[in-house]
Amino acid sequence: MAPSAGTGLLRKPDTTLPHRLARSARAERDALHSTEELLAWVRERGAAQLHDVRRIPFAELDKWRFDDATGDLGHTSGKFFSVQGLRVSSDHGPVRSWTQPIINQPEIGILGILLREIDGVLHCLMQAKTEPGNVNGVQLSPTVQATRSNYTRVHEGGAVPYLEHFRDAAGQQVLSDVLQSEQGSWFFRKRNRNMLVEVREPVAEHEDFRWVTIGQLHRLLAVDDLVNMDARTVLSCLPGGFEGSEVDGSDLAGALARSRDPRSGTLHTTAEVRSWITSRQAEHQVRASLIPLHAVRGWRRTDAEIRHELGTFFTVLAVDVRSNSREVGGWTQPLLHPHGTGVVALLVKRVDGVLHALLNARVEPGYLDVVELAPTVQCTPENYAGLGVDYRPPHLDVVLSRRPEQVLFDTELSEEGGRFYQARNRYQIIEVDADFPDSDLPDFRWLALHQLTGLLEHSHYVNVQARSLIACLRGLR
Amino acid sequence: MAPSAGTGLLRKPDTTLPHRLARSARAERDALHSTEELLAWVRERGAAQLHDVRRIPFAELDKWRFDDATGDLGHTSGKFFSVQGLRVSSDHGPVRSWTQPIINQPEIGILGILLREIDGVLHCLMQAKTEPGNVNGVQLSPTVQATRSNYTRVHEGGAVPYLEHFRDAAGQQVLSDVLQSEQGSWFFRKRNRNMLVEVREPVAEHEDFRWVTIGQLHRLLAVDDLVNMDARTVLSCLPGGFEGSEVDGSDLAGALARSRDPRSGTLHTTAEVRSWITSRQAEHQVRASLIPLHAVRGWRRTDAEIRHELGTFFTVLAVDVRSNSREVGGWTQPLLHPHGTGVVALLVKRVDGVLHALLNARVEPGYLDVVELAPTVQCTPENYAGLGVDYRPPHLDVVLSRRPEQVLFDTELSEEGGRFYQARNRYQIIEVDADFPDSDLPDFRWLALHQLTGLLEHSHYVNVQARSLIACLRGLR
Repeated sequence: MAPSAGTGLLRKPDTTLPHRLARSARAERDALHSTEELLAWVRERGAAQLHDVRRIPFAELDKWRFDDATGDLGHTSGKFFSVQGLRVSSDHGPVRSWTQPIINQPEIGILGILLREIDGVLHCLMQAKTEPGNVNGVQLSPTVQATRSNYTRVHEGGAVPYLEHFRDAAGQQVLSDVLQSEQGSWFFRKRNRNMLVEVREPVAEHEDFRWVTIGQLHRLLAVDDLVNMDARTVLSCLPGGFEGSEVDGSDLAGALARSRDPRSGTLHTTAEVRSWITSRQAEHQVRASLIPLHAVRGWRRTDAEIRHELGTFFTVLAVDVRSNSREVGGWTQPLLHPHGTGVVALLVKRVDGVLHALLNARVEPGYLDVVELAPTVQCTPENYAGLGVDYRPPHLDVVLSRRPEQVLFDTELSEEGGRFYQARNRYQIIEVDADFPDSDLPDFRWLALHQLTGLLEHSHYVNVQARSLIACLRGLR
Repeated sequence: MAPSAGTGLLRKPDTTLPHRLARSARAERDALHSTEELLAWVRERGAAQLHDVRRIPFAELDKWRFDDATGDLGHTSGKFFSVQGLRVSSDHGPVRSWTQPIINQPEIGILGILLREIDGVLHCLMQAKTEPGNVNGVQLSPTVQATRSNYTRVHEGGAVPYLEHFRDAAGQQVLSDVLQSEQGSWFFRKRNRNMLVEVREPVAEHEDFRWVTIGQLHRLLAVDDLVNMDARTVLSCLPGGFEGSEVDGSDLAGALARSRDPRSGTLHTTAEVRSWITSRQAEHQVRASLIPLHAVRGWRRTDAEIRHELGTFFTVLAVDVRSNSREVGGWTQPLLHPHGTGVVALLVKRVDGVLHALLNARVEPGYLDVVELAPTVQCTPENYAGLGVDYRPPHLDVVLSRRPEQVLFDTELSEEGGRFYQARNRYQIIEVDADFPDSDLPDFRWLALHQLTGLLEHSHYVNVQARSLIACLRGLR
């Protein structure tokens, strides 16, 4: 094609980006702060951020009320979120219809990480942030983590630092900006805007913020309950698998490098993967609609809890928070407390030297579009304790009976501490033999990493638990 | 990357496909049937398919009932579709809240075109199909056009021909398989599965079916009311812009060829385009919920019509159909009759020799995800006749005052005749000068054709009217 006489209006993608991301993913020694310094800073911020969380009866909630007519629990401003009821009917799974409490938070918030090249290496501006539901107080969070109510000033607190970089992209490079869902069992159609924005000009580190390389983040992901859910989902949306690795062997590192590379062959072409997802969306008929919380059956409300009569699933409770580090000094709010520690596991295997991960097209009632790709296993085993084998999730036994040499990743990571009270999951990546069955179940398929990161450029393909594991998979050493 | 010792399990995309599609798009003389033969066959099938459509009062509908409690109009089986009410509130546009009737059809149907290489040229198996709402009886339709009720045999008619190729992909190549929305002003969250499947083995032409090249389809798109909506949306989902054209000039053909080529520069990078779409989805707050048809205000039900008290927008009516060509010989059903002829227009311009089209991030209440990309102009001018200038859609005046030499495409095309009664739109592609304003309105952006066809690999980015125009744009000569 002959070039035309241009006026310079046309633009092309930044072809240096994959290389720059790969360099940041290898970078630990040439980081602005050493990883040890970062860990010390997180501990120091945790001590500095006074944060006293106390469970209270619902009657002590300030500005939160149960509606007389519906029983829904909401904020008097009508903003933030509310706890309502959900009725679900489905043609899928062992339980075809049920009702449950669910968090309705229709506003779309911003989860944003600011990037900047420092001494030739991309760094992410990470925040040490305390949330009331965190098991350990402070966790490593995105630069900005703001609901629409936050940044439109409903609670009349201070400004959100660095928000301006995500509200006005002038002079900046947007690496990714995509709506992604959150837990579809606990949230009704909640999604947040996951943004990664690169700035060119210097940006100051406030005391709760530090510049961190992607390689350092990969190392910190292996520390229990340190990198929070919001940081993990945004990191997962970084473009590409960070191709450009020189690793070339037949070992795991080589299999991972080939899995990152879009030129590698895959068990299923990307067109076939999309067709499989479409078939799952078209064939699963799920109806989910909000109902009054009063109308939910099998759940009991006491003065301090809404809980299932079997004691399973989760509890809705209330907390009083005293803090010196948030936009407002103290507040009360409801939180959802999941019972038990969940198992979130991705099985991977090498196929002709290319690492593939086994994804599950999973129905959750709160998804906007019925089905999203979940990890191979995502469940809380104790919820299945009293139930028969038909109810047992596929492949759970493979995870529970893993041998140590199969375990590539195994860390307890928390879910979002602004909505969930001590929600813990054990995130695992487990390698199985090459002859592990390929596709004996219609809701499971093996995908390469570059296929997963391609899907993450778009909304509602990959669920939040799988996004966490993709961030971890990309960082395996 | 060193190749590993493979077991032959891994696959790569069919790299011959862009070339084969481009060849089919150029093919008219080496087609199985001449275009004249195809036009004669469509006329002949129209005469053979006895199809008598008569408007009737609602009381004469068979198996369709108004529900006493809600006023909703539905089928006694609970299948097919129903006419219900919709309540909309929005922070966007001149009218912030309203109620209206809407078609609720939650089942996902299949719209599928079968492709096969015949004498080295890809052909599409097209159907001459009569629908009760068509202005002219028979139109050129996809190979398969089946609701879930159709193919699961609710109305106990005959089998759907060729359906097996779309229900079981074994031994076939899926070129595209994606859920796409339909009219968001008339349907509540309706989507269909748009499928393009290539078969290798011979497939017989039944009398209502003919193999047609893509080049022939492009020519037939310029005939008024011939290629139906379902065929247009499926064709739009063909992968890529059909790159591989040898056209190389500075004229329109060259600008179109460069617009097809993913290596060409664009006014906005694809990451920026996705970020813009995300920003529109995040910033427009729209709540739409089904309500009883009884609760809709400003609409009147007579014995044969549900219509707006101003006579604008659309009417819901009932028809009796006598046919010898459908799975069942005769039936009655409701149809939605839009008033007036709509204007659906895409402005295009050449920027440094690359054709760009101006898309509108449009809110329609029936979209699953708030916003989809629509053509530059999409409206029925007479609905705005009595209203002030603030209500007038942007760029409508550019379309209405077009000069003949600006018009690249101008054809009346119908919307789906199985749900809509004589729904006509004038589809236009109009070229404007290179100095036409770039992005003065936040809901409009200029995109290259390859960016649009990239978005069409995924659900809910591009609305049905824009998909029609993309099929037409790709076929411009």
